[in-house]
Amino acid sequence: MLNDSEREGIFKAIFERRDIRSFNGKPISKDKLNNILMAGHHAPSVGFMQPWDFIVIDSQGVKERLAHACHKEIQALSIHYEDEKKTRFLSLKLEGIREAPITICITCDPTRGGGHVIGRNSIPETDILSVACCIQNMWLASYAEGIAMGWVSFYKKTDVREILNIPPHIDPIALISLGYTDFYPTKPILEQVNWERRRNLNNLIHHNAWE
Amino acid sequence: MLNDSEREGIFKAIFERRDIRSFNGKPISKDKLNNILMAGHHAPSVGFMQPWDFIVIDSQGVKERLAHACHKEIQALSIHYEDEKKTRFLSLKLEGIREAPITICITCDPTRGGGHVIGRNSIPETDILSVACCIQNMWLASYAEGIAMGWVSFYKKTDVREILNIPPHIDPIALISLGYTDFYPTKPILEQVNWERRRNLNNLIHHNAWE
Repeated sequence: MLNDSEREGIFKAIFERRDIRSFNGKPISKDKLNNILMAGHHAPSVGFMQPWDFIVIDSQGVKERLAHACHKEIQALSIHYEDEKKTRFLSLKLEGIREAPITICITCDPTRGGGHVIGRNSIPETDILSVACCIQNMWLASYAEGIAMGWVSFYKKTDVREILNIPPHIDPIALISLGYTDFYPTKPILEQVNWERRRNLNNLIHHNAWE
Repeated sequence: MLNDSEREGIFKAIFERRDIRSFNGKPISKDKLNNILMAGHHAPSVGFMQPWDFIVIDSQGVKERLAHACHKEIQALSIHYEDEKKTRFLSLKLEGIREAPITICITCDPTRGGGHVIGRNSIPETDILSVACCIQNMWLASYAEGIAMGWVSFYKKTDVREILNIPPHIDPIALISLGYTDFYPTKPILEQVNWERRRNLNNLIHHNAWE
């Protein structure tokens, strides 16, 4: 059983965790990094397949190449927005790979655990869903450690595979930047800039069937 | 900033959370259920699209139909295992839908937020990854509330869509059972029965490139 403060900590992390793209230069200790990786590794996974790997990147050269790949993709995406929305999109800070002391590429190995993984046999994408649970654990553990985290999904997978020498059957699910920040916002960035708003939970709840 | 006990609570939840398939009959209060749903709704989502819906099932008739759909799938999957492994597979308790006071079908609406969701434009499956983060938040919130949770992924999506009247473009990502349990194990069930073991984290960490 948890005491009240332990329970409170869990809900604080869940409600106050934010996606951060601005980091100051302060380095992350090995202990904290290890706690965050260990938290990811203790995520649930379908058939206990643990399909994740963690490529921990602290080389500035590799970070530059990843940031370049992201910026190519952001430029390409901006083509699809028109006029004011395009300007607003390009004005958003969408990644902090260069500044963050550490970026981690989290991958999914769909072959891990062999051909007949329990549960994945029915719903194959449960492997990447397991990796997402791993990432969410890392996010909450980062919050617990006072460290900011940002999930970047602006890249072509082929670029990230090439930069990080990832085999073709391995799926680079996310680039996660970790570091300290001078400003940890109370609301999601996209809500703050009026890009999207939080939906009313009551409208998302159905009873016994889709309504 | 968190105090030590709040920090501890977060790591306890992450490390001690288990996937549960056995429930006693004790009901869940509305407050606790609401806290768990609210925790899910505060997950990160790509472009803040919040693609999830929650179908909360307490009707015994609907639960029976879902459990039947799962058991059909489990029987079908067992055909792929041979001899002793087949016997072991069929001896596992793979779902607790009938006993759990509440089962929630968590869905993903890939159309939510319109055609050009930030981030999802590059990696379309980030919508279902967001739903997985939502599920992991619910798992940790359940742990905080002293409630056991089990993720069932043994079903044909078409069966679940039909039983719950889910529109064809909506993806039923998971069936989540919630309730109280008399036995909350310290290790994952599949580890306890020697089906799989936890991997060594050190073997999953790479430095600056896939090794």
